[in-house]
Amino acid sequence: MAGRDTRERIVVASAELLGKQGYHATGIKEIVRAAGAPFGSIYHFFPDGKEQLGAEAIRKSGAGYEELIEAVFGPAPDPVTAVGDFFAAAAEHLRETDYADACPIATVALEVASISEPLRQATADVFESWIRAAAARFTEAGLAPGAARALVVEMLCGLEGAFILARSLRSTEPVEIAGKAAAEAARRALGEMDGGD
Amino acid sequence: MAGRDTRERIVVASAELLGKQGYHATGIKEIVRAAGAPFGSIYHFFPDGKEQLGAEAIRKSGAGYEELIEAVFGPAPDPVTAVGDFFAAAAEHLRETDYADACPIATVALEVASISEPLRQATADVFESWIRAAAARFTEAGLAPGAARALVVEMLCGLEGAFILARSLRSTEPVEIAGKAAAEAARRALGEMDGGD
Repeated sequence: MAGRDTRERIVVASAELLGKQGYHATGIKEIVRAAGAPFGSIYHFFPDGKEQLGAEAIRKSGAGYEELIEAVFGPAPDPVTAVGDFFAAAAEHLRETDYADACPIATVALEVASISEPLRQATADVFESWIRAAAARFTEAGLAPGAARALVVEMLCGLEGAFILARSLRSTEPVEIAGKAAAEAARRALGEMDGGD
Repeated sequence: MAGRDTRERIVVASAELLGKQGYHATGIKEIVRAAGAPFGSIYHFFPDGKEQLGAEAIRKSGAGYEELIEAVFGPAPDPVTAVGDFFAAAAEHLRETDYADACPIATVALEVASISEPLRQATADVFESWIRAAAARFTEAGLAPGAARALVVEMLCGLEGAFILARSLRSTEPVEIAGKAAAEAARRALGEMDGGD
C-alpha cells in the first residue's frame, strides 16, 4: 500500500509539473521533491525512466480533465450552455492562477510531438478521449456522430489556441472570444439539425 | 560584416530550433553547431545569454510569419479566400514536414509564459503583431476595428489549437475543421457588415 501511495504521488506530482512548466523543464529531482519520494523510487516504479513516467502523467492529467468536462456538461441544461460555462470557468481559472494553469497537456504535446512517439501517443489518446467525451454529449442532443466530432474538434481547437494566447498576452480576451464562437457554433449545429439556420 | 553575419546566423538557427523543439530542449551547443559559429560568440553577441537570444529569435520568427500572412492576404481576391488559403497552406506544410513545422512560437510561448517575463513579452508582441496585420486586412474590407480584432483573435485561436491537435494526432483534420470555421466566421462577419447574411 505504501508502495502504491508513493507511485501515485509521483504520477500526480509529475502531472502537475508537466502541466505547468512542460516536459523538458521538469527534472526527476524536482518530481521526487514535489512527491516527497526517495530519488530511487522513480526507477523502481518506472524502470524506463522519465519517458514512461511522463506518458503516465499525461494520461493521469487527461483523465482528470475529462472528469471536468463531465462535471460541466452533466448538470448543464443543454450542451450550448455547457460550452459557455466551460469557457467561462477556464477564463476564471486562468485569472485565479495568474495565467499559469490552462490545458494540462498542451505544453508537453507541442514539446514531444516530433521527438518521442510514446509521449506523443499519450497526448493523442488524451485529446481523442476528450473529443469522444464531449462529442457524446452532442450526439445525445441529436447530432450525427460526424457532425458532433467536427463541432467538438472546432471548439477544442478554439480552446487550446485561446489558452496559448491568454497565457502569452496575460488576458482572458482570447478565451472569451473563443468561448463565444464555440457556443455559437454549437447553437448553429443544433439549430441546423432542427432544420433552422 | 563577418560579425553581423555570425550574429544573424545565430538568431536564425535559434529561431528554427525554438520553433521545432521549444526553448528548454534547445541548448547553446546545438545553436552554435547549427549556426556554424564559435561557442563564445553567443556571449559576445548576447551578453545576457540564452534568454536574450531567445527573445530575439522569437521576434525573428514572428516577423517571418507575419510576412507569410502578408504574402497570403496580399494576392488573394478577398480576405475570406485568404483565410481558406492560409489554413490550406498550413495543412499542406504540416504534411510536408511530417507534422514538425507549425506555429514558430507556440511551443516556446507555453513553455515560458509563467517563468520568463522577457520571453513571454516577446511572444505577446509577436502574437499582437500578427493580430494587427491580419485585422488590417479586415478593416480594409470594411469591418470596424473591434470586430476585425475579435474575428482575427477567433481565427488565430482556431489555428493555434489546430496546430497542437494536428501535431499530436498526426492528422490535418483539425486544421481543415478550424480552417472551415475560420472562413465561415470571416464570411459571416463581412456579411453582417452588409446588413445580414
